[in-house]
Amino acid sequence: MSKEKIAIAYSGGLDTSVMIKWLKDKYDADIVAVTGNLGQQKEIENLESKALATGASSFHFVDLRTEFVEEYIWRALKAGALYEDVYPLATALGRPLLAKALVDVAVAENCTMLAHGCTGKGNDQVRFEVTFASLAPHMKILAPLRVWEFTSREAEIAYAMEHNIPVSATKKNPYSVDENIWGISIECGVLEDPMIAPPEDAYQITTSPEKAPDTPAVVELEFVEGVPVAMDGKKMNGLDIIVQLNTIGAAHGIGRLDMIENRVVGIKSREIYEAPAATILHFAHRELERLTLEKSVFQYKKNISQDYANIIYNGTWFSPLRTSLDAFVNETQKPVTGLVRLKLYKGNVTLLGRTSPYSLYNEALATYTEADTFNHKAAEGFIHLYGLGLKTFNQIHKG
Amino acid sequence: MSKEKIAIAYSGGLDTSVMIKWLKDKYDADIVAVTGNLGQQKEIENLESKALATGASSFHFVDLRTEFVEEYIWRALKAGALYEDVYPLATALGRPLLAKALVDVAVAENCTMLAHGCTGKGNDQVRFEVTFASLAPHMKILAPLRVWEFTSREAEIAYAMEHNIPVSATKKNPYSVDENIWGISIECGVLEDPMIAPPEDAYQITTSPEKAPDTPAVVELEFVEGVPVAMDGKKMNGLDIIVQLNTIGAAHGIGRLDMIENRVVGIKSREIYEAPAATILHFAHRELERLTLEKSVFQYKKNISQDYANIIYNGTWFSPLRTSLDAFVNETQKPVTGLVRLKLYKGNVTLLGRTSPYSLYNEALATYTEADTFNHKAAEGFIHLYGLGLKTFNQIHKG
Amino acid sequence: MSKEKIAIAYSGGLDTSVMIKWLKDKYDADIVAVTGNLGQQKEIENLESKALATGASSFHFVDLRTEFVEEYIWRALKAGALYEDVYPLATALGRPLLAKALVDVAVAENCTMLAHGCTGKGNDQVRFEVTFASLAPHMKILAPLRVWEFTSREAEIAYAMEHNIPVSATKKNPYSVDENIWGISIECGVLEDPMIAPPEDAYQITTSPEKAPDTPAVVELEFVEGVPVAMDGKKMNGLDIIVQLNTIGAAHGIGRLDMIENRVVGIKSREIYEAPAATILHFAHRELERLTLEKSVFQYKKNISQDYANIIYNGTWFSPLRTSLDAFVNETQKPVTGLVRLKLYKGNVTLLGRTSPYSLYNEALATYTEADTFNHKAAEGFIHLYGLGLKTFNQIHKG
Amino acid sequence: MSKEKIAIAYSGGLDTSVMIKWLKDKYDADIVAVTGNLGQQKEIENLESKALATGASSFHFVDLRTEFVEEYIWRALKAGALYEDVYPLATALGRPLLAKALVDVAVAENCTMLAHGCTGKGNDQVRFEVTFASLAPHMKILAPLRVWEFTSREAEIAYAMEHNIPVSATKKNPYSVDENIWGISIECGVLEDPMIAPPEDAYQITTSPEKAPDTPAVVELEFVEGVPVAMDGKKMNGLDIIVQLNTIGAAHGIGRLDMIENRVVGIKSREIYEAPAATILHFAHRELERLTLEKSVFQYKKNISQDYANIIYNGTWFSPLRTSLDAFVNETQKPVTGLVRLKLYKGNVTLLGRTSPYSLYNEALATYTEADTFNHKAAEGFIHLYGLGLKTFNQIHKG
Repeated sequence: MSKEKIAIAYSGGLDTSVMIKWLKDKYDADIVAVTGNLGQQKEIENLESKALATGASSFHFVDLRTEFVEEYIWRALKAGALYEDVYPLATALGRPLLAKALVDVAVAENCTMLAHGCTGKGNDQVRFEVTFASLAPHMKILAPLRVWEFTSREAEIAYAMEHNIPVSATKKNPYSVDENIWGISIECGVLEDPMIAPPEDAYQITTSPEKAPDTPAVVELEFVEGVPVAMDGKKMNGLDIIVQLNTIGAAHGIGRLDMIENRVVGIKSREIYEAPAATILHFAHRELERLTLEKSVFQYKKNISQDYANIIYNGTWFSPLRTSLDAFVNETQKPVTGLVRLKLYKGNVTLLGRTSPYSLYNEALATYTEADTFNHKAAEGFIHLYGLGLKTFNQIHKG
Repeated sequence: MSKEKIAIAYSGGLDTSVMIKWLKDKYDADIVAVTGNLGQQKEIENLESKALATGASSFHFVDLRTEFVEEYIWRALKAGALYEDVYPLATALGRPLLAKALVDVAVAENCTMLAHGCTGKGNDQVRFEVTFASLAPHMKILAPLRVWEFTSREAEIAYAMEHNIPVSATKKNPYSVDENIWGISIECGVLEDPMIAPPEDAYQITTSPEKAPDTPAVVELEFVEGVPVAMDGKKMNGLDIIVQLNTIGAAHGIGRLDMIENRVVGIKSREIYEAPAATILHFAHRELERLTLEKSVFQYKKNISQDYANIIYNGTWFSPLRTSLDAFVNETQKPVTGLVRLKLYKGNVTLLGRTSPYSLYNEALATYTEADTFNHKAAEGFIHLYGLGLKTFNQIHKG
Repeated sequence: MSKEKIAIAYSGGLDTSVMIKWLKDKYDADIVAVTGNLGQQKEIENLESKALATGASSFHFVDLRTEFVEEYIWRALKAGALYEDVYPLATALGRPLLAKALVDVAVAENCTMLAHGCTGKGNDQVRFEVTFASLAPHMKILAPLRVWEFTSREAEIAYAMEHNIPVSATKKNPYSVDENIWGISIECGVLEDPMIAPPEDAYQITTSPEKAPDTPAVVELEFVEGVPVAMDGKKMNGLDIIVQLNTIGAAHGIGRLDMIENRVVGIKSREIYEAPAATILHFAHRELERLTLEKSVFQYKKNISQDYANIIYNGTWFSPLRTSLDAFVNETQKPVTGLVRLKLYKGNVTLLGRTSPYSLYNEALATYTEADTFNHKAAEGFIHLYGLGLKTFNQIHKG
Repeated sequence: MSKEKIAIAYSGGLDTSVMIKWLKDKYDADIVAVTGNLGQQKEIENLESKALATGASSFHFVDLRTEFVEEYIWRALKAGALYEDVYPLATALGRPLLAKALVDVAVAENCTMLAHGCTGKGNDQVRFEVTFASLAPHMKILAPLRVWEFTSREAEIAYAMEHNIPVSATKKNPYSVDENIWGISIECGVLEDPMIAPPEDAYQITTSPEKAPDTPAVVELEFVEGVPVAMDGKKMNGLDIIVQLNTIGAAHGIGRLDMIENRVVGIKSREIYEAPAATILHFAHRELERLTLEKSVFQYKKNISQDYANIIYNGTWFSPLRTSLDAFVNETQKPVTGLVRLKLYKGNVTLLGRTSPYSLYNEALATYTEADTFNHKAAEGFIHLYGLGLKTFNQIHKG
């Protein structure tokens, strides 16, 4: 009789490498290692040989980049999803897609267990496991890092050396870093003290505003129904737009974020993020919405944005609330078509102009020149009724 | 029998100067001119002689600065009130206080009518008149600019010259500007085209980021229960903190805002704002909240912020909803005590650190070092129940 | 040259009859009278001859019942729209449809003006005119009742007799009544005193609970995706379901409502409603949602319900916010399929049972018998992390 | 050295009786049994002798009724807290107070552990433990029912007999019942099938509507700032008002509730409630609010109600969000003073009238008689600006 199989979310780093061996022994199982490509730049070479050398029986490298952009990032962008008003949710958006990709492989390979390399105090375990439970309720979920015997990095390395597990020779990054195309998160080390400003070496891709060029860059972005479709007058696919904006934004010091945030599991943590493209695109999208969304939609959608961000952060992507909010958001985006011109300069994103065929800014109504067509006399009646309730209230509560 | 008296909100500019004469003639009334000091720098000299020369029977200059800071600005700051996420509501916050001051004088002087110099398409008429209706429901409200015969600035000037009304000789500012200590709003002229970036001359006090110093400034702000009480280690009153932050912020290019916004009266307008102190204080306050507010309070208050901003913008300051939200906000602010260290550099406000005796960031829980006290094993049960509803939903909707 | 034409929303009652003649004279125009059938029972006979005898140049009777049910009522039902938690919005839902029907006729008949018979203090003028402005922005809107010379019903009758306008001989109903298939609203007379309970004669169709049968009726309603499709096991169209529920509900004293409500125009009014079918259907629909909606959707949708009700009440039906909320609501309704069994008895609607193929109630998880499959031990970890934030907060704020 | 002490929430029923012995043995500890009086009628006699006979080293009976009414029930009433719009939260409100009382005794008695008798799938464990963690973070929490060896009631009884634990001889109630002055919850047995209507024997105190008197009762309730202070013209304390309303309401079939609800722990359950006084008081309070709350406060507070109810239901009573919402609610209640007259008849609560010195219903504005003082002509300008945004939107999206 053949062994049971465990599909594991594999990154090639120390934790998931040790995990392969540890799970294989503990469960006497075959290990199916799966790495998803979300556009990360680091640690993506030689993954197959590393995984197999470590003991995996098979390895799968799944290119998720286009799906990530089209089905995850654009939805978050249209929704205006920034966790606690700041974090563009790069890692958080990637987890349900990685989990889904892992489930797909697990099903194809007849695995009965799913494993991830998250610790017991982070958000990512929640995002993985809630997705697993939703998409593959009958598979067993394993989270070795929550239960295994290693209490330090050194112990893991000793185990790896003992079992001939190939691990990178480079000395440890003082920070814990997670990276995908929508942004990078950085934590640990001196960052654990909220009174210490992030050292320059904490940032992985962005130039500091102080060292950024003295000459601003100008960028033009075009959107159709809330989705970016062109940059500087050239039609481009989403992935390329993001890659280019990351490059130019990083050079100009855009998208460094430093926040104390509220995790799902009941603690506050301090996180540093770099997200040049996400910062620029959210800014541009929002400005286009100011021009094209009817007032009540604009103001209503603000609340939806926070709730949508929470859904992503909290790991409940595969949920009927998310799809219902998507339906709302997509309907609102129909007029969000047009162009936004931006200046990037030493950490600032500044608006140079915005225009849309569906602009609701009506110069004939708004102008203070003689071209004014607004009916000024209507205001008297308007204000009379608009303020009548408060007038009545204040009369009663004064008498 | 003595004449009726009209109290007017007087600024010394062309509109309200012409208004004095126009109302005096039209209503055969005595004119009581009232100017409130909200910290504006321009057009505050010789107001009394100008008003009297124009035909006012009396003039009142009321210093509202401390009341403005303590009873209006700090409430808005604690509430996190930014209209449509951007505008710190300087003019909007000032109007109800000016209107209240006008009513106070009108009552003391036995006036029967109240007049303001707002047009029929702006927000300020609403803010004035809703306040008048609330505080002085039996007084008649006059809004000459909505009904008088002048259709251009030139016509007003001709009338002024004909009636010996002193008006400033300087040539017209191409922009319409309103100013108080919490910020400046600028509109009209080329700004009416949303595809034109604001020319440098549109900005009244701020240096452009490009021309700001190459060396950053560092600022430390201390808060007690959500209110700023010290700067750079020195206890200061609120007014002085704002004045100093305006100076230093303006020098570093902080607080330029450019937005399409939704007015109360059903149109979108394009507004430019300068608000260095407001920008810095809102940022610092928010960061301190991230450290000290319990998660559900932090997230709940976000919605309250938007609603509170709308109340200010919409002119319903004297309302039971505002006082009820104040009660909520004040209760939330009890732990918002501590220090925030900031860097100001070429338009950026960057966080250098934050600390509080009520910090909820618990390094022992958050750390990834061996000092970790978090119970990792609790996560399994947590996630199991946290995701159980979605698991059930997805099982039912797959079968 | 031919005369201009005015399309008027005609009911056949005194106000709109007088309006035909008054407008015809005042504007020297042809009058196109339009009556929409929303299922009202009263005053729908001889409308054409009456309208023509009164001076209309043409008359249109438009059957809107099916459109009303399918495109308006079902949307409101799915959204759970009850204004201020009580009023099912019968009149409010009908107005935009009547206004749209009037615009359609006006366009077909080349009218240049639109007129309605609403007073200046009600909600209906808002609903008519906002719809007119949205659908026919270039047509002029006339509201004779806000401006004409008649200050009493008697003056109108005198005018009618003088001009041979046929008006019903019956003596005046002491109440003002508006009726359609979704409900009846009753106001005026002694109802203007909130301390007086509605006299029996105020109610137009319902039996009082005291006089209702001693034997309950049982009703079974089936829904598919939130829409009623069958009653007592028999497939029926929406119109028939509503008509039958009105009959049986009215007999059992269901659907009497008595409320002080907040009008759009800044005043509180006291309104009595009768809405047997709406009461029963909202109740049944809600109970089915309790069974089939995932928790976060159920709780989220509650807020949407209030907002959706406000949109209907406030007359902004033809708005992008309404269509965006419809998109949300429709997505939520996918699992709202199943059966609800109810008892009607002397004013009470009581639940006898509910079932659905998409029920999320899982007896194996919920039971306290030995069939229990719930993982009780998971709770410890769950509660530990669920309460960790408050634990931390309370530790800090006690020390 | 003396033994450690465990304080347990003791009811005198089978579970908590067995728990005393089981904990005493397992932990070799002294047991401090604590029963809180929240107005329950059953199982409150001979508790001390029973507890001591079972093995407790001491017993405390704490009368919490007045505190329950003043500090818990009235807050929930003022907030309008009904979970998922139905459940008045009787048990949920009682738990944090019971937990607090237990902690108080535990501190006084130098206990180091706290125990409750809740299962692992209910809400009450969450409410107890979150309160324990907040108020006594250093005490260990024990939940024997989640971990002990008994898998059925019979096993518990066998254990009780073996250890001479006195248990009621009466045969088992087919339902699980929890009772306090604000209401009764009933679950289990045939109630676990949502298609079965609750049998008459499930209800503990209410008469069925069918068997209720043919003659209605009339009740007058007076409120001061949102709190009931008198009934039928007689000043009464809160406890007495609730007791009397429970009696009269139960006799008239008021307050039976049957719902599928969403628990904290991720499942739906079916619950039956009886809450005559809560039903009547919430209804009366709400009607008085309709009369006295300014429109925006009334509509805003609706959302707060749901959130407040969730806080109670979810067990986070001792939280800064709850106290912040209390501050909001208390401010809103200042005008909620007045009288409500009700009719109780066969399950219906009907409004007969309401009046208040702070009534915002202004007959002079609302009337359709000649006494009307409303400015009808103001409506034209009002509607013009009110609808201008939608007009602009629809023009753009039609062209």
